[in-house]
Amino acid sequence: MDLKKKIRDVPNFPFEGIIFKDITTLLKDKESFNYALEKLYNSSKNKGITKVVGIESRGFIFGGALAGRLGSGFVPVRKPGKLPAEVFSEEYALEYGTDKIEVHKDAVASNDRILIHDDLLATGGTVEAASKLLRKTGAEIVQISFLIELGFLNGREKLKDFDVFSLITYD
Amino acid sequence: MDLKKKIRDVPNFPFEGIIFKDITTLLKDKESFNYALEKLYNSSKNKGITKVVGIESRGFIFGGALAGRLGSGFVPVRKPGKLPAEVFSEEYALEYGTDKIEVHKDAVASNDRILIHDDLLATGGTVEAASKLLRKTGAEIVQISFLIELGFLNGREKLKDFDVFSLITYD
Repeated sequence: MDLKKKIRDVPNFPFEGIIFKDITTLLKDKESFNYALEKLYNSSKNKGITKVVGIESRGFIFGGALAGRLGSGFVPVRKPGKLPAEVFSEEYALEYGTDKIEVHKDAVASNDRILIHDDLLATGGTVEAASKLLRKTGAEIVQISFLIELGFLNGREKLKDFDVFSLITYD
Repeated sequence: MDLKKKIRDVPNFPFEGIIFKDITTLLKDKESFNYALEKLYNSSKNKGITKVVGIESRGFIFGGALAGRLGSGFVPVRKPGKLPAEVFSEEYALEYGTDKIEVHKDAVASNDRILIHDDLLATGGTVEAASKLLRKTGAEIVQISFLIELGFLNGREKLKDFDVFSLITYD
């Protein structure tokens, strides 16, 4: 199945000059959603993953589905102020300014084997911050997976220490 | 399995006087996550559901997992400005002021059979708005499911027209 055909290009969203890769057209189609889930699952099985970490909010969709498919737990990485208990925080650079993500301090144990999942690898800033957050817990990051990778933005260079899998790549 | 034991009470979050039901302690535990998923799946199977509609953002976690388990498609209902193509919008009342949610106009077809999923039924304002959104598409809302229902807030009264399932209820 050619999953690229299921992804919609939306010009000038969220800003003028950007072509947004809209995954909702892939998600709504049961064949492509479940085909993509199976491919992501196949890339992650047999690695002893105990927890899937999904990045808010689109990373929750396949992240939750992968936790169900792998029989693992699920841990949300969220924007500031959303998680109610004690958190680790990590700041990261945006094109203009900075942003921050958080994870519960007790969400992950040092013997956990982690899959970090997000929908999109662009410049890699968010997921790099997520990897730093998770390293504070002492757990092993076994894999980082994405539905889509925008290869021309070289986000993968920020993730050299990790096993990175992307289902759909735009060069 | 007593899932209530897996949910953490966080006092005074997000506001003084509120006891927040923190589901992250249930999610991170693979036994309780997968037990809850199986129970939610069992309540929704054999209904011919073609699409799971998850409400941003915690509704994406089990929403995505349920779409995988049911073999259906997934449709996100999101906060304003997040969805890139043409949307239906629905405003709803908060304790102070109003909020709005959106769904892509082309996300659901009139012959779809819909499961709406969110993590929490409190006063029911958000999910009532979601049901109005989905009705604009002409699709049938076959079921509305929640991980948790705060029964004492009577949110179910706003959902009298629907088949409502809650896995965990606080009276």
